[in-house]
Amino acid sequence: MRTVDLIQRKRDGEELAPEEIDFLVEGYTTGEIPDYQMSAFLMAVFFAGMTDREVSRLTECMLRSGETVDLSSVEGIKVDKHSTGGVGDKTSLIVAPLAASAGVVVPMMSGHALGHTGGTVDKLESIPGFRTNLTPDEVRAQLKEMGLCFISQTDRLAPADGKIYSLRDVTATVESIPLISSSIMSKKLAEGLDALVLDVKVGNGAFMKKQVDARRLAQMMVGIGRRMDKRVQALITDMSQPLGYAVGNALEVMEASQTLQNAGPTDLTKLSIELAARMIFLAKKTPTLDDARRLAEQKLVDGSGYKKFKQVVAAQGGNPQALDKFELLPNATGMREVTSPRGGYVTAIDAEDIGTASNMIGAGRDRKEDPIDPAVGIILEVKVGEKVDAGSVLCRLYYTREERVEDAAEMVEDAFRISAQKPEERELILEVVG
Amino acid sequence: MRTVDLIQRKRDGEELAPEEIDFLVEGYTTGEIPDYQMSAFLMAVFFAGMTDREVSRLTECMLRSGETVDLSSVEGIKVDKHSTGGVGDKTSLIVAPLAASAGVVVPMMSGHALGHTGGTVDKLESIPGFRTNLTPDEVRAQLKEMGLCFISQTDRLAPADGKIYSLRDVTATVESIPLISSSIMSKKLAEGLDALVLDVKVGNGAFMKKQVDARRLAQMMVGIGRRMDKRVQALITDMSQPLGYAVGNALEVMEASQTLQNAGPTDLTKLSIELAARMIFLAKKTPTLDDARRLAEQKLVDGSGYKKFKQVVAAQGGNPQALDKFELLPNATGMREVTSPRGGYVTAIDAEDIGTASNMIGAGRDRKEDPIDPAVGIILEVKVGEKVDAGSVLCRLYYTREERVEDAAEMVEDAFRISAQKPEERELILEVVG
Repeated sequence: MRTVDLIQRKRDGEELAPEEIDFLVEGYTTGEIPDYQMSAFLMAVFFAGMTDREVSRLTECMLRSGETVDLSSVEGIKVDKHSTGGVGDKTSLIVAPLAASAGVVVPMMSGHALGHTGGTVDKLESIPGFRTNLTPDEVRAQLKEMGLCFISQTDRLAPADGKIYSLRDVTATVESIPLISSSIMSKKLAEGLDALVLDVKVGNGAFMKKQVDARRLAQMMVGIGRRMDKRVQALITDMSQPLGYAVGNALEVMEASQTLQNAGPTDLTKLSIELAARMIFLAKKTPTLDDARRLAEQKLVDGSGYKKFKQVVAAQGGNPQALDKFELLPNATGMREVTSPRGGYVTAIDAEDIGTASNMIGAGRDRKEDPIDPAVGIILEVKVGEKVDAGSVLCRLYYTREERVEDAAEMVEDAFRISAQKPEERELILEVVG
Repeated sequence: MRTVDLIQRKRDGEELAPEEIDFLVEGYTTGEIPDYQMSAFLMAVFFAGMTDREVSRLTECMLRSGETVDLSSVEGIKVDKHSTGGVGDKTSLIVAPLAASAGVVVPMMSGHALGHTGGTVDKLESIPGFRTNLTPDEVRAQLKEMGLCFISQTDRLAPADGKIYSLRDVTATVESIPLISSSIMSKKLAEGLDALVLDVKVGNGAFMKKQVDARRLAQMMVGIGRRMDKRVQALITDMSQPLGYAVGNALEVMEASQTLQNAGPTDLTKLSIELAARMIFLAKKTPTLDDARRLAEQKLVDGSGYKKFKQVVAAQGGNPQALDKFELLPNATGMREVTSPRGGYVTAIDAEDIGTASNMIGAGRDRKEDPIDPAVGIILEVKVGEKVDAGSVLCRLYYTREERVEDAAEMVEDAFRISAQKPEERELILEVVG
């Protein structure tokens, strides 16, 4: 078997055999296949795609390249939720406690911020003392005790994916549906899950800009799960404006806390209930999905979800009081208002620009090694469809260092579109796949 | 400027600016851009193509990466001929002396064998003593004295192309029309030419299997030449069967000698006259192309071309007597006939198979470092359209070592298609571009 022949066959649109996929991934992981051949192969995949059979094998192969978490000693159906990434998307912090309080076992594994989107691990780490690097024994113990833990992805899970992802990042081969699908699924399946709920974001603030691409991604991931005997459902949800009002790490923890106390934004609450319900239903805790929705809602309203979140924060070294007393969270020192240049309706809020502006003042990273500032971010005052007057506040930037604040404010101002005509309402949950 | 952004823009079908092409080629040549980014870029070019402007800049940039031959001190219009490679294609050995004897200055630069096709340098080196590694001073002196020299490509001309070609070879990015065009033209234009005649081969024995691809390649190369103020014409010619009867280095030198003595195969003679006529016309030696054809024919019939060839062979250290007395050329020690399994018409002779079989017995190389056997090869006894009886000889294999002869004979037998019906005649010269 010669690598160049496999690249050529993929380039020419042929399907590779399972052992050929193994040859490529194993060869690359061990270093026998050089970067320059793998990058040519990845670009060929970008253009020629992959069949379901190929992408499933690629996922399995990356999964097998590292450790897997053995949760067989933990009783119950283990369900996780994964979002493809958005702006202001703090649903994990709400959904996981709701599902866990309804009896689902939730080993929630998350990553750091990527590009203009936030990362659940960064948000949780803004809670003083919170640690996500639990050992496998700690994971199992905590799941047995309270049915929920938040852990960060480690390099030991699916290391082949880690190596391939680094190469994709510098060779313009990130935006490939088979490569995204296999990357997500190989890491998720390494956690020892039984079922998975996917939140595939679509819109200007998401990696998938078009619904047709989001659908293909969702279908491919659901297919990979099915071939590996996991129950997987995907929601395709709108990311054409930030979710909720808060963008930035500690700011999003505050909003998640409020939402778990049934005082959160409508869109965030609605999506969280739906995602938690899907997890509850896949874990067979209720006979129907509607029952699951009612159960999730009840766990929100009666405060069980909030209680569960505080319990887990305490268990993982964080100060649970910070969820009531926000002054215990990192707080910004400066504030800059952005006002509307004219009266009218908010017809669009470019989520990617909001995310990028938030990163500019320190909420995200340019490079992996960069530190983030947990205190800073943006709070929207209005959302799409609302009416504003000239000079009324559109949003507030919270910062700790002056530099780049004005640039960020300008970007944020441009992100809002104000028109005379009221926009049509856009659905939050667009499709269900699986 | 970030390499990854340029890869992405090419991937997404955008045109890169001239300075962006420079950045990529210069960065790669100096080693600042790693192989893995260049290979991803090359695969993106394979799929997304290049505009005429991009491919011209790429050519210029590769040309500028190394030395160029300064022929300004040599009077007259310098014209070369280049073939994209075929089986039994020894036209360079005939065309160059014909054009030179008509007063054209011909700095003929050639390469070694590539894949199943032969290389002019290998053919010439089968003449005892012949050397092609002339210094620039030797090239100029010989061109001034006799208007013709045969030189081999050196790594000093267009080294960026050399580096990129090596990478293409192992990343399945060879078969890209913009990359082929710029590779050929950067080396050719480094010779200090004024004009160039291209012979773009099409058919099973050529790298381009389809006429539409050959046409695109021809158009792109003619366009590159035009943008650099060179007069370039391209013929698209049939390579669905070997050209002439002889395949293999010394065997082809013999056939070229016979052709220069007006005793060669019809197809080879016809194509050689046409190519020489185009060179003569581009060099402005005659007012019309028809006059140029007559002049080329005259130089063949009156023996001037043959005399010129012998003069050049002697000047470059070869024994010119070997062109009359073939026993002075390397000769094979064994011969194996391949006969027809039945009577009928020869409807096809797969040129790629003939070339591959010839390589199997030693006429070509598997790897760059491999030695070649100048004596061995294949002589066809019949061509497409001729009638054969059962058991009559189709061709003869000439070899010096027994191993692989039977395998080669089997491949050659399969290369011939014999049918009851006489095939339609196929044109040798299919199109003219430029």
